[in-house]
Amino acid sequence: MPEPIIIGTVALDFIETPFGKVENALGGSACYASIAASFFSKPGIMSIIGKDFPNEHIEFLKSRQINIDGITTGEKTFKWQGFYEFDMNEAKTLKTELNSLESYSVAVPESYKDAKYVFLANIDPEQQLKVINTLNNPELIVMDTMNFWIDIKKEQLLETIKKAHILILNDGEARQLFGTPNLVKAARIALKLVSKAVIIKKGEHGALLFTDSKHFNAPGYPLENIKDPTGCGDCFGGAFTGFLTKTNDVSEENMRKAVIYGSVVASLNAEGFSIENLKKINIKDIEKRYNEFKELRDF
Amino acid sequence: MPEPIIIGTVALDFIETPFGKVENALGGSACYASIAASFFSKPGIMSIIGKDFPNEHIEFLKSRQINIDGITTGEKTFKWQGFYEFDMNEAKTLKTELNSLESYSVAVPESYKDAKYVFLANIDPEQQLKVINTLNNPELIVMDTMNFWIDIKKEQLLETIKKAHILILNDGEARQLFGTPNLVKAARIALKLVSKAVIIKKGEHGALLFTDSKHFNAPGYPLENIKDPTGCGDCFGGAFTGFLTKTNDVSEENMRKAVIYGSVVASLNAEGFSIENLKKINIKDIEKRYNEFKELRDF
Repeated sequence: MPEPIIIGTVALDFIETPFGKVENALGGSACYASIAASFFSKPGIMSIIGKDFPNEHIEFLKSRQINIDGITTGEKTFKWQGFYEFDMNEAKTLKTELNSLESYSVAVPESYKDAKYVFLANIDPEQQLKVINTLNNPELIVMDTMNFWIDIKKEQLLETIKKAHILILNDGEARQLFGTPNLVKAARIALKLVSKAVIIKKGEHGALLFTDSKHFNAPGYPLENIKDPTGCGDCFGGAFTGFLTKTNDVSEENMRKAVIYGSVVASLNAEGFSIENLKKINIKDIEKRYNEFKELRDF
Repeated sequence: MPEPIIIGTVALDFIETPFGKVENALGGSACYASIAASFFSKPGIMSIIGKDFPNEHIEFLKSRQINIDGITTGEKTFKWQGFYEFDMNEAKTLKTELNSLESYSVAVPESYKDAKYVFLANIDPEQQLKVINTLNNPELIVMDTMNFWIDIKKEQLLETIKKAHILILNDGEARQLFGTPNLVKAARIALKLVSKAVIIKKGEHGALLFTDSKHFNAPGYPLENIKDPTGCGDCFGGAFTGFLTKTNDVSEENMRKAVIYGSVVASLNAEGFSIENLKKINIKDIEKRYNEFKELRDF
């Protein structure tokens, strides 16, 4: 059985940054997340593509031992076109073609239904909820989202969050969703909805892990040369859930490690264009940077 | 001999936040810095006040064993009026009355001239430089500044930075002064000017310490109830320099500890209005929070 199972988008990305440009690149939250998870475990994806989806991308996912039984095929693949300006902090969307994603209704393969570890990457919260309701006995549901869904489907989003164990969101989304500029207060509110933990991603400033009794502050990695931050948040969630799946341990202590592995894979991803760096790195590169994270926060 | 010796402003503050209001409060970079340093050592201040300066404030500084021989008296005390909005991130200045600060020329007391440890808190860089040039044999010059001086005295500021050993500035100032959005790149440029280290303060996101070979990422403390962030940056620099003075050890390892002590005192300061919390706390409170910083970073 593939684990973790991951629902999210599969996209063809058109990205431009001050350092390069790419067209029809493999992208989407489920792809970044499952590639990141594949360093630790053998994930399975649920998503939709179109008839125009290049076979090489499918072959690549398979080569990473990512199970694609949960991918269905519609007419045209979801396309995202965006760019980053000099400060590289925020993606500016130029164009979004939802295409087959618009009418997507997830079908969870039989072979996924006993999965214990689940990552709901960024996608319509109603589809995330459908996955939760279809599974037999999920033990850990980790959930990501984005501001888009807070804007247009807040009620359904909160409904889904209530069924998740761990909520991941970035600082701006946390402030927006819970109506406070104070991240500690936002986390307290979120902890009333989810049963286990809340993770607030802060980009270059690291990430915060809140559980009922404890707080963990993960450092950001000092990137001198960011090439393309696309997919960093998805990598974080995928690697986080992949590491927990591999270790089968969701103690607070082990979640701290998982947050660092998430940060490690995200930072490595940002140093390459599109998924190019994810294609190059291996678990040794990840362990090396994990140790660098230890060193840079030691006092 | 008082140490560290500290130059900066002494002000009467008029502050308003969503949580309170205060008038004629003891403020200014030299006051916050010297009070923070006084938890570790016996600092001396160089600054100027006016005849209108309340005697109780002088008595308070003396009660903290802060040497005030370097304070001269002009006509009227520097006054700053500011407020913070809901997000508490940035002080908005309503009114600045420079008063006697406008024509201030620092006079370094004889008893200060052999000081080894020096903190140049935020003030006109020409006065900071004058202090450096007057001292006999300073071993560690730590220097702070603010965007105001980058705007109007950039050349003099850079001249002064070149004579400092450690430069402290916040992320916005680092980006502005060194013309790059990337903090690692900004730090690399700064390290060509100062001989020892660069510290970039990031408010709630912690602080970064860069030396030639290493990088340290200090966490921010998760403050649920910020009352008034006035003086936090000055507290950081004062406690940082005070701790180095006390331990007489400027190794990279000990500077990491000093960064945490700086963050500790700054975070305690933000939990009270004006200097009220600095008046209440003692070294035990500081050590307790230092240990909390350790805990929230462990993985």
